[in-house]
Amino acid sequence: MGEPGGVGTEILLKAWKHFSEMPPGQGPTFFLIDDPMRVERVARAFNADIPIATLSDPSRAQELFPSALPVMALPEDTLGLLKDCEFGKALPASAPAVVASIDRAVELISEGAGGGLVTLPIQKEALADAGFAHPGHTEYLEKLTAKTDMPKGVERGAVMILTAGPFRVVPMTVHVSLAEVPALITKERIFRTGLILAQALVRDYGIPNPRIAVAGLNPHAGEGGKLGKEEQETILPAISMLRERGIDAIGPFPADTMFHEEARTKYSAALCMYHDQALIPMKTAAFYAAVNTTLGLPIVRTSPDHGTGLDIAGKGHARPDSLINAIYSADRMVMARNAFQHQTNG
Amino acid sequence: MGEPGGVGTEILLKAWKHFSEMPPGQGPTFFLIDDPMRVERVARAFNADIPIATLSDPSRAQELFPSALPVMALPEDTLGLLKDCEFGKALPASAPAVVASIDRAVELISEGAGGGLVTLPIQKEALADAGFAHPGHTEYLEKLTAKTDMPKGVERGAVMILTAGPFRVVPMTVHVSLAEVPALITKERIFRTGLILAQALVRDYGIPNPRIAVAGLNPHAGEGGKLGKEEQETILPAISMLRERGIDAIGPFPADTMFHEEARTKYSAALCMYHDQALIPMKTAAFYAAVNTTLGLPIVRTSPDHGTGLDIAGKGHARPDSLINAIYSADRMVMARNAFQHQTNG
Repeated sequence: MGEPGGVGTEILLKAWKHFSEMPPGQGPTFFLIDDPMRVERVARAFNADIPIATLSDPSRAQELFPSALPVMALPEDTLGLLKDCEFGKALPASAPAVVASIDRAVELISEGAGGGLVTLPIQKEALADAGFAHPGHTEYLEKLTAKTDMPKGVERGAVMILTAGPFRVVPMTVHVSLAEVPALITKERIFRTGLILAQALVRDYGIPNPRIAVAGLNPHAGEGGKLGKEEQETILPAISMLRERGIDAIGPFPADTMFHEEARTKYSAALCMYHDQALIPMKTAAFYAAVNTTLGLPIVRTSPDHGTGLDIAGKGHARPDSLINAIYSADRMVMARNAFQHQTNG
Repeated sequence: MGEPGGVGTEILLKAWKHFSEMPPGQGPTFFLIDDPMRVERVARAFNADIPIATLSDPSRAQELFPSALPVMALPEDTLGLLKDCEFGKALPASAPAVVASIDRAVELISEGAGGGLVTLPIQKEALADAGFAHPGHTEYLEKLTAKTDMPKGVERGAVMILTAGPFRVVPMTVHVSLAEVPALITKERIFRTGLILAQALVRDYGIPNPRIAVAGLNPHAGEGGKLGKEEQETILPAISMLRERGIDAIGPFPADTMFHEEARTKYSAALCMYHDQALIPMKTAAFYAAVNTTLGLPIVRTSPDHGTGLDIAGKGHARPDSLINAIYSADRMVMARNAFQHQTNG
């Protein structure tokens, strides 16, 4: 569901339109966990001629999908909380409903009633004001799935990846100031992130022999130590550790020349040292298309790579591109995981 | 001339080919300061059917240009130094010739015998080994032009800008480790760089009312202070200082969402806090096209945005795109400066 005051419902309706027009059986099927009456009101507000079907049995989603957006109702005790919500505002009062939608989705996936999770953007401040003690979706999903087993030999640990087709970047550090970054660049962190990434490239993206290009921290990747020692003292040894584990990791490379179209064909994913080092090239190259995915969880989880868009909510011009790609991506990851599981067991 | 062991001569020959095929008077005219015999040997080595004309009087360059690449000979005492040079090697022995080419070019421009300077890449280590005491072209050009007057009201001070058509980025700090960056982000530096940039956008690029978009230092531009204080304590006050001087500076913006095609239409140039913040988006979007230019000098100076390419020198497949754009760009800057001068005096 995501934040009901944001653009989430609008882009989800647009995404349903996109997928419902595909030939039957060709595209992924999904259902929304929300208040069906609210979703209907939103669809009418946008003059979007989109029928809503209330779903109680998830196994009927596929059958309903071509003719209506299937919406499974939130738990009774949270439905009433959404009555005051309006576009452009994130109300702490909605928080229990927002969280219940996530809880229910994870439950259904654990029961096998859903293949993977696509999350719509949430407003972290509103959730925090309502007492939600997790910085975001990712940490909460780690907690919810902490007791779900990982497949044998597959490492657990949430790793954010941004993808646009075959262009994939992982920011190894995320929401910290730039000044804090150098101290967080440790051999262990690079090794562990690289390991989870390598396993995910095989298991989730179906790449049999993935190659990971590791970015330097400093300009020109330190220029042989003249512009910083992190490459020689930390990043290069970590790459050796990954290679000793049989992972095709290469680098460290100067970040500025790693991301143009030709360079991108030379690796399966780029492991970046900090937030903007990964997000600048991704959003420069694929602003509307990028998908945000969490690797290293027992469940598949993707998300559009943008926020709640409170400032443009209700206006009808939010673009569904990233959500559509997030749905495609989740679907493909589920298939890849099934194939991998089959292969490993077979 | 640049480093004779690198790709400079090869791409210059290709650039001449490009421009010599334009209708007379349509494109810029240039001449090379080098050893004419050596250039001829290089042209033959590449089977490039390019006639070389020895130039002694710069005013004849325009007349010669359509049928031959005009090459002005280096000073007698440096010509012999190039006899041992070979592709793939940067010899300290060549250094005095490399430097003499720069000196002569600046002299000729000061005398009005040339409109602007395009520098080919030099190998800094080889020059340093030969006793050249300047970190690179930029600092040396600052020294050579220190006594040349700037126009009234125009600030002096070398500022690097990278351009690809209307996409322009300035890295405010350059060749320092990432850990050193936060301490270099001062109000004074932002103000001064922004001021020189604003004046150059008017004088060198002919933009009457330029808008400068200033990037934040931290992810999400600090997210209201949660991910770093530099935006609130330093960058925002510096933007106010620029605005008080009548400069249309805006920001600070999250760097990851500043550089996609649509975002780029909203400003004349982006002022970035560090090397990779500026160079990642530029090289992601325009790897072969980008031009490196020094603003804030009394003379026009552009350069291709790549190094000497020692590893691919002599193989014939170096791309002249960036040099060609550097020549176009220098030509347009010279015209813009002349128009500006005329306007200011008239």
